[in-house]
Amino acid sequence: MPPINAHVSSLGGSPIRALLALAQDPSVISFGGGAPASESFDVEGIGKSYQRVLEEHGARALQYSSTEGEPELREAIAARMTHNGLHSEADDVLITSGSQQGLGLVGQVILDPDSIVLTENPTFVSALQAFSLSRAQFRPVDTDSGGLVPEALESAILQYQPRALYLIPTFQNPTGVTMPESRRREVADVLDRYNIWLIEDDPYSELRYDEWTMTPISADPRLRQKSLYLGTLSKVLAPGLRIGWIRGPQEVLDTLATTKQGTSLQTSTIDQLAAVDWLTHNDLDAKLVPVRAEYRRRRDAMVAGLDEVLPDGYTLNTPMGGMFLWANLPESFDANESITDAVQAGVVYIPGAQFYVADPRPSTIRLSFVSNPVETIAEGLERLGTIFR
Amino acid sequence: MPPINAHVSSLGGSPIRALLALAQDPSVISFGGGAPASESFDVEGIGKSYQRVLEEHGARALQYSSTEGEPELREAIAARMTHNGLHSEADDVLITSGSQQGLGLVGQVILDPDSIVLTENPTFVSALQAFSLSRAQFRPVDTDSGGLVPEALESAILQYQPRALYLIPTFQNPTGVTMPESRRREVADVLDRYNIWLIEDDPYSELRYDEWTMTPISADPRLRQKSLYLGTLSKVLAPGLRIGWIRGPQEVLDTLATTKQGTSLQTSTIDQLAAVDWLTHNDLDAKLVPVRAEYRRRRDAMVAGLDEVLPDGYTLNTPMGGMFLWANLPESFDANESITDAVQAGVVYIPGAQFYVADPRPSTIRLSFVSNPVETIAEGLERLGTIFR
Repeated sequence: MPPINAHVSSLGGSPIRALLALAQDPSVISFGGGAPASESFDVEGIGKSYQRVLEEHGARALQYSSTEGEPELREAIAARMTHNGLHSEADDVLITSGSQQGLGLVGQVILDPDSIVLTENPTFVSALQAFSLSRAQFRPVDTDSGGLVPEALESAILQYQPRALYLIPTFQNPTGVTMPESRRREVADVLDRYNIWLIEDDPYSELRYDEWTMTPISADPRLRQKSLYLGTLSKVLAPGLRIGWIRGPQEVLDTLATTKQGTSLQTSTIDQLAAVDWLTHNDLDAKLVPVRAEYRRRRDAMVAGLDEVLPDGYTLNTPMGGMFLWANLPESFDANESITDAVQAGVVYIPGAQFYVADPRPSTIRLSFVSNPVETIAEGLERLGTIFR
Repeated sequence: MPPINAHVSSLGGSPIRALLALAQDPSVISFGGGAPASESFDVEGIGKSYQRVLEEHGARALQYSSTEGEPELREAIAARMTHNGLHSEADDVLITSGSQQGLGLVGQVILDPDSIVLTENPTFVSALQAFSLSRAQFRPVDTDSGGLVPEALESAILQYQPRALYLIPTFQNPTGVTMPESRRREVADVLDRYNIWLIEDDPYSELRYDEWTMTPISADPRLRQKSLYLGTLSKVLAPGLRIGWIRGPQEVLDTLATTKQGTSLQTSTIDQLAAVDWLTHNDLDAKLVPVRAEYRRRRDAMVAGLDEVLPDGYTLNTPMGGMFLWANLPESFDANESITDAVQAGVVYIPGAQFYVADPRPSTIRLSFVSNPVETIAEGLERLGTIFR
């Protein structure tokens, strides 16, 4: 075989996806991936949208379309962001084929081999995968129960001269931590003083199980020219459609768009039109009410059940939204080792060590509470108990 | 704004897409882009496929799925390639979100800033765009009416030590040239002797207007470990779905898949399932019969009409398939200059100079003959006549 790009071939894939592939056996209960509950999908409503789009705009839906995205969808996404406190116009939005494409494009466009990216530690492993393709390096910023510590951010900026800060401020993956409003303002204060990018990844904020909402850090007007905000319909409509977006300053959106053009031309026209048709014919907030209620039940069931299962001395956070529980087991446990036993017992979690950019803690695990009904969660936890107790 | 990757921001987008955006005015007749005729889409059949997929596998269609692609679709694509003379198994296929994503991934995985890519001259400008993101450099190989000249290929390999050869052997874009079987074997003979990649791009071969078929160069067993073959459903089913694929050796497919994972996770699950449902419930060859007949009529109408329109001394090839006519006007003409007049007269072609990797010829133009009905072609040519005569 002729040579290939040595850097790229050295990277390997997502360890999570590899683990999930091992657990394809339907008898295995997976607390692994971040898949929404399939039974929450509005199959009928989405079916009607595809039908309507093909009946009313068949030729358009099946034809090439713009790299930036369908105008009506950009409009609808901008309206939703504005509704959530992040004032946006359609022109501020580049549609992407899922949020992961957004991360890939951001990596290609703003990062190069000299770039340092500051991150929470632990953080979303697939963002690291995307940014690593540009040979970026990662440095951790200290966090506490309120997320990133602003003073630590400022020290890290001075020490590392980073190109960007990557953050998931709401229902963070993997820890579930949410940064309070006051902390967001302090982070914006720091970012305002330095010429670095904020990459704000916000896939989970619509999955909140309490009454409040959090304003994106990117809503701070001082960050308008230095923030790239990523959103997705995967967690609120369906991930199979691959609809995400980037909101950012026009100049960088233009380069992101030409890069998208070179690497995939455009997002599926029919999926975009079906998504905007669905958003037009349905009340997203009303649709989310039962989903949130069910996910909340699942979270509570898993939190309660874990106390019977995890070894004495564990700690667990109860996130106010999102998809994941994050547990610290006593130091003597190595979750990378016990995963083999877990798979044999018919249950999968994700060992936490792989989410760290520095000082990995092998005693941590991530559990998704949204993918399984309460009864399956109970059964999965029972299997987990045979491993940990 | 904080800095961005200087190399990427310097690249700019496709000049063709920019030109087409200028010509959005519906009164303008476009011979520009490579869009299939919208009226050729099987809107009803595709609609039934989406409906069936959502009724029968709704939860699956809307959920995350594998990076490699849906197993049934990989199977169907492998069967189609085998049918077309390129023996393939499902495992040889990585589904991509359109062929352009395939080009982007190939660029990321096999090319780096030291890589030289040999190409036909002129060649497909969006492939150059994809490969340029990896900072690859291009060198032309001499061509004649049978495509790439094998002796010139060997000299270029010896002179430039390239990483890859990028070729569109059938109904080439932009020239329409097709490499005969004997020439394909000679090219394979040369490639067999050197350790370089063949990137064989084959989007058009199903659009043939005569009885023969051409075997892909990649079918030569000597090239099994050094060929990356790219295909697409865009020209035979619909481009709006974004379904393409790469066929290649397992080891590089694995790296292409992990790179796809980092840059977009997966291709739309629902679009993949709808595509394979359509392929299962329809006879692709039968469906292509009227499309080929109509495109042939359009080609003939445009070839005949151009003789009234182009300045004396022009040369034109009549391709046996594909989408494009390529004309050489007398040297005194500059197609980059006259495009402004053409847009004002209500017609668009693509100036040929931008397709060259070296020694651009400003007197060349590319015209798509598939996108418009015969009457519109006549009207467009009349407008073109006001410019060129």
